[in-house]
Amino acid sequence: MIVRSKPGVWDVAFAVNGSILPRIAPHLVAIALISLLAVLAAMEHPGIFARISAIPFTLIGIALSVFMSFRNSACYARWWEGRELWGKLIIACRSFARQTSTLDDDDRRVLLRGLCGFCFGLTARLRGGDELAAIKPWSDGGIASSVPNPTSALLSQIGTHCLILMKRGRIDPIHYAVLEGQLTALSDVQGGCERIASTPVPFAYSLLLHRTALIFCVTLPFALAGSLDWWTLLPVLLVAYTFFGLDALGHELEAPFGLEPNALPLDAMGRAIEREMLSLLGERDLPAPLEPCHNVLM
Amino acid sequence: MIVRSKPGVWDVAFAVNGSILPRIAPHLVAIALISLLAVLAAMEHPGIFARISAIPFTLIGIALSVFMSFRNSACYARWWEGRELWGKLIIACRSFARQTSTLDDDDRRVLLRGLCGFCFGLTARLRGGDELAAIKPWSDGGIASSVPNPTSALLSQIGTHCLILMKRGRIDPIHYAVLEGQLTALSDVQGGCERIASTPVPFAYSLLLHRTALIFCVTLPFALAGSLDWWTLLPVLLVAYTFFGLDALGHELEAPFGLEPNALPLDAMGRAIEREMLSLLGERDLPAPLEPCHNVLM
Amino acid sequence: MIVRSKPGVWDVAFAVNGSILPRIAPHLVAIALISLLAVLAAMEHPGIFARISAIPFTLIGIALSVFMSFRNSACYARWWEGRELWGKLIIACRSFARQTSTLDDDDRRVLLRGLCGFCFGLTARLRGGDELAAIKPWSDGGIASSVPNPTSALLSQIGTHCLILMKRGRIDPIHYAVLEGQLTALSDVQGGCERIASTPVPFAYSLLLHRTALIFCVTLPFALAGSLDWWTLLPVLLVAYTFFGLDALGHELEAPFGLEPNALPLDAMGRAIEREMLSLLGERDLPAPLEPCHNVLM
Amino acid sequence: MIVRSKPGVWDVAFAVNGSILPRIAPHLVAIALISLLAVLAAMEHPGIFARISAIPFTLIGIALSVFMSFRNSACYARWWEGRELWGKLIIACRSFARQTSTLDDDDRRVLLRGLCGFCFGLTARLRGGDELAAIKPWSDGGIASSVPNPTSALLSQIGTHCLILMKRGRIDPIHYAVLEGQLTALSDVQGGCERIASTPVPFAYSLLLHRTALIFCVTLPFALAGSLDWWTLLPVLLVAYTFFGLDALGHELEAPFGLEPNALPLDAMGRAIEREMLSLLGERDLPAPLEPCHNVLM
Amino acid sequence: MIVRSKPGVWDVAFAVNGSILPRIAPHLVAIALISLLAVLAAMEHPGIFARISAIPFTLIGIALSVFMSFRNSACYARWWEGRELWGKLIIACRSFARQTSTLDDDDRRVLLRGLCGFCFGLTARLRGGDELAAIKPWSDGGIASSVPNPTSALLSQIGTHCLILMKRGRIDPIHYAVLEGQLTALSDVQGGCERIASTPVPFAYSLLLHRTALIFCVTLPFALAGSLDWWTLLPVLLVAYTFFGLDALGHELEAPFGLEPNALPLDAMGRAIEREMLSLLGERDLPAPLEPCHNVLM
Repeated sequence: MIVRSKPGVWDVAFAVNGSILPRIAPHLVAIALISLLAVLAAMEHPGIFARISAIPFTLIGIALSVFMSFRNSACYARWWEGRELWGKLIIACRSFARQTSTLDDDDRRVLLRGLCGFCFGLTARLRGGDELAAIKPWSDGGIASSVPNPTSALLSQIGTHCLILMKRGRIDPIHYAVLEGQLTALSDVQGGCERIASTPVPFAYSLLLHRTALIFCVTLPFALAGSLDWWTLLPVLLVAYTFFGLDALGHELEAPFGLEPNALPLDAMGRAIEREMLSLLGERDLPAPLEPCHNVLM
Repeated sequence: MIVRSKPGVWDVAFAVNGSILPRIAPHLVAIALISLLAVLAAMEHPGIFARISAIPFTLIGIALSVFMSFRNSACYARWWEGRELWGKLIIACRSFARQTSTLDDDDRRVLLRGLCGFCFGLTARLRGGDELAAIKPWSDGGIASSVPNPTSALLSQIGTHCLILMKRGRIDPIHYAVLEGQLTALSDVQGGCERIASTPVPFAYSLLLHRTALIFCVTLPFALAGSLDWWTLLPVLLVAYTFFGLDALGHELEAPFGLEPNALPLDAMGRAIEREMLSLLGERDLPAPLEPCHNVLM
Repeated sequence: MIVRSKPGVWDVAFAVNGSILPRIAPHLVAIALISLLAVLAAMEHPGIFARISAIPFTLIGIALSVFMSFRNSACYARWWEGRELWGKLIIACRSFARQTSTLDDDDRRVLLRGLCGFCFGLTARLRGGDELAAIKPWSDGGIASSVPNPTSALLSQIGTHCLILMKRGRIDPIHYAVLEGQLTALSDVQGGCERIASTPVPFAYSLLLHRTALIFCVTLPFALAGSLDWWTLLPVLLVAYTFFGLDALGHELEAPFGLEPNALPLDAMGRAIEREMLSLLGERDLPAPLEPCHNVLM
Repeated sequence: MIVRSKPGVWDVAFAVNGSILPRIAPHLVAIALISLLAVLAAMEHPGIFARISAIPFTLIGIALSVFMSFRNSACYARWWEGRELWGKLIIACRSFARQTSTLDDDDRRVLLRGLCGFCFGLTARLRGGDELAAIKPWSDGGIASSVPNPTSALLSQIGTHCLILMKRGRIDPIHYAVLEGQLTALSDVQGGCERIASTPVPFAYSLLLHRTALIFCVTLPFALAGSLDWWTLLPVLLVAYTFFGLDALGHELEAPFGLEPNALPLDAMGRAIEREMLSLLGERDLPAPLEPCHNVLM
Repeated sequence: MIVRSKPGVWDVAFAVNGSILPRIAPHLVAIALISLLAVLAAMEHPGIFARISAIPFTLIGIALSVFMSFRNSACYARWWEGRELWGKLIIACRSFARQTSTLDDDDRRVLLRGLCGFCFGLTARLRGGDELAAIKPWSDGGIASSVPNPTSALLSQIGTHCLILMKRGRIDPIHYAVLEGQLTALSDVQGGCERIASTPVPFAYSLLLHRTALIFCVTLPFALAGSLDWWTLLPVLLVAYTFFGLDALGHELEAPFGLEPNALPLDAMGRAIEREMLSLLGERDLPAPLEPCHNVLM
């Protein structure tokens, strides 16, 4: 996640870090070259270009805006839902910790350390890392490497621990139901994150909008060159910057658990949970919270 | 579901697999022929065509964009809700498995295998397959063929099993309520999926937008031919590609449980549940996860 | 609900059944006549009409599209929420049946038949039918005719039956709470349906959009007649078809429990619940599911 | 709430009652006068007006439509959420009544009459009436006048009554939890209603849109007068009617608990609850349901 | 939060307090100067300016409206969700108080004062204040200064108190579960508020729209100066006022817990909770509710 304050005048003019500009720069250069070509052609054959009307471009441009806005809404909703799920994860961990505050220290240590392992395992799972390695430091029993879903298996271990506490009469059945409610919330989080990570916006959608935006930006200079001469560059680049920029940004937000600058800071949130859980277990020597690096918090 | 990475330059230019292009190709060819006709006619009778103004087309085109965007949002929301329901199914199965981890192996086997049968029965029900055959391998008791809703009947069997466990004192009433909570979640999933599958977007809506888009694309070349000559083809085909493409895509997303390329991968998700359930029952010899075939995951 | 497959080329051209066309035909004829008048007037007095600019119509037309799209979204959301509520009704009935599977046959019969009565009573209530008559065949005790809300009173009887089962120790208090959870879901459904049925989209909204659309379509031919001659008819009728059609469709969806072709199939859903409940009670002689009649499922 | 059937041709042409027209009539008259001025000025100095282009007005008009549509969606969502909250209130009262059907008549009378008092107290609170006076007839114990929130205090009394029933063993703890669930729903309703009533859409938003719409409508005639002469009045008034009408309607819907014609019928809903509760307590002499007066239901 | 009644004619014309105008005044002055420059240049070199077409500006302007509307929706949704969360906080405090009404006075005092401390601690946390100092007057035990999240730790203390009451048999396990349900709601509120406060709308989005709006407003006068002369100022300033105003307003709403005039009145809501809790504890000498100061409620 990019951590910057509200952009000031200076940022608006020159900010590169945190901008989508570097990513779409090649496209913009290509469009600029095509515009130059169009202007030169218009100077050679003014007759042909005078007849090209800008009206169909207005029509296509507006249609493209409407549909691209729809795709951006969908991508932003995925990104924000990802953040909501991790917020729910933080809440469930805190609530579980609060509801186990009168358990024996040993039991509580196993359970809360398990929650930390769940967070780090989920991060590794969502980012394609090594789940077993991420979980290992936090789980005493360990997870067999043949298990198809180690993070879920760890949650199962925590649940079994709670069931055993109930069976031995150490906690009331109602108390078990309350704790299990938080574990179900954690399952919801995992299932929701896997859903977002494994199900992109339909490919045909992205492709259709990509293609339309590309053809639109490539042909626009030919429509304007006849009347605007060298001024053609300005509106064409502004349009290309907006459309390509929103398209690229949509792609980044579509996969909120990745490693791109606009992705969610899973590592930082995992560390925050680790700090809170360890503090509740009485540890004084907490790891430091993660800080953004070059304005990007991972 | 089409499984492809972010489209690169090459894909944008030439990707056919995963594109909506093959489906709307006949329409595009027809529109191209009509455009040719319009251009030829405009060359014959330039007087008539000079008077046709493009302004009413701007108006209709924008109105069409706005309404088509609304229909696309509704169809995409159905598709995404379908995916959310199946995510909920996965979560409920995992939670149910976690909450039964201290039961006898025999009871647990019956229950978890029942969940697998529920998933495959639901898939068959949603895709018009043979529910009874899909359920049979997973259910010991079997389901009578006269039952109107076999998948729901299987869930009922699982619920009755839990009730009996409570009656015999093997599980606490609270524990029963916790388990039944997951079964209710599974009922929610089935009811939600049936709702989406049985209730399309109102037919009159689709028809109205279809007709307007068709008349618009058929008449557009006549409005542009007067001023654009052979260039007419470019904006007309771009508009037709965008409108027909979004319309066709909306139709695919409207029915998210079908067998079209953009439908949800029910088989793959069912297999994932099967693998997790069997692994929890201690089976080592798990079936392999389904892989996409020609970029399509079923 | 109109039950038709995806409209093919033939349907797009000629489908009347399921289309909104018959309903708005008088308006279209009127607009066509006004257009003829405008064209004739423009031929008589070309000077006046040449000065009428189409630009204010573009502005008004786009504003109208945006606001009409908003109203359509609101109406569609009501229709879809109505369907969601009935889906919830089906789910609650199934879950209640599953949770009572170990009760005595007599008790279960009373309860499940009560659920059927609830469905039919709710249908009658929402469609202005005779609630008491619809409930009577399913309720042993009967409902007093002076009761302000018979459907809710029937649900109260079912709830009281459950309370008595708990008081007599036939079911555990937790089991009672689980059953009552489904009855609360049924109350939610009834309350939600009554909310949609009794609270239309604000009248002033519908009136404002109606008026603007009407004035727009009536004046549009005068703006176009000067430049388009007899071609005026085509864009005017296309615009009128789209705006009047969406307006009429919005009105049908606004009241999803009515008897119009696009209303929800309450009868068919009630029959489906009846079939499932009777099957669970062991009845073999189930009523047949309702079939669509002239493509319309009631 | 305005209670009228779907507007027919006659209503569209002449309906005043239930229309937003009376409220914005002064604005429309002012705009008409300004238009006359513009037309007269354009006749005097045709040279100046010929140069004023309508294109910036198209741009501003479309931007204004988009933003006003957004504000209207937000206001309508508030209005509809208000209705949903009152629907939830009705559902919670019915469910609470159902769940107390086996209590002693005296206890039940106190509880259900308390619910009626809660409804009337909430109405008074939301409409700025006298809460204590509204509650008094329904509460035996009475509420001290120094209490900051009498409606919430009444709910607290009902909750305490339930707690005492549990303490005395008259109801099971689970039964208490079920009843308390409905009281929490009633707290949700009160909190939600207070939130809507106390937090308007940000003032700066309304002001910005107001100002832009006003300047737009005041300057539009000057842009059109040059080319349209006396016809200027028609599009200007249509635009002003649409924009001012939607703006005024947004304001009415923004405060759904007020006393304006489009506000929610809190009195009628309170009476409906009163009738159902009294009927369940065995009273035969129920107050009549409220009827709309001049098409307005309060 | 700005507390003003519906803006009247006077407000629309002259209101500064509560308007976004002061904040964007420097931008408007700069745009006005650029417009003057453009007009002067157009008078010097009319030939060049005559060729600049306004059509690309229409296209960009509409695209910008659509995307800015999307960003405004997202920001408003954050602001409104912030308000919903604080509404949930108020509801949970009231419900918790109602559910503890039969506890000993001492226990209840500790618990309800803890809730007040939670509210003030959360306010301090969200506004960057001193959490420990805000909590201290309300918590007997105190919170260690080394704790990473003091507000959450206070909630944990309340939860532990409830657990101990259950362990000592002073409340039933079910009663504990009911109380813990409210504490989980409070955890939800804290987690939700932290999510909104720590996760802004992606920076690249704001930057892209900022830049496009700026370039658009800076170049617009050059497009209009050729045909509008000194009238150029009017549409340019109106467009700049609308776009910059909505942009600035979006920024204020994006961070709903800040100290800007449009932020949510956390202090006033905290005081309202304090008054209700103290009143329930029998205190007569309640602090006065907070009043708006210069139309702004903090």
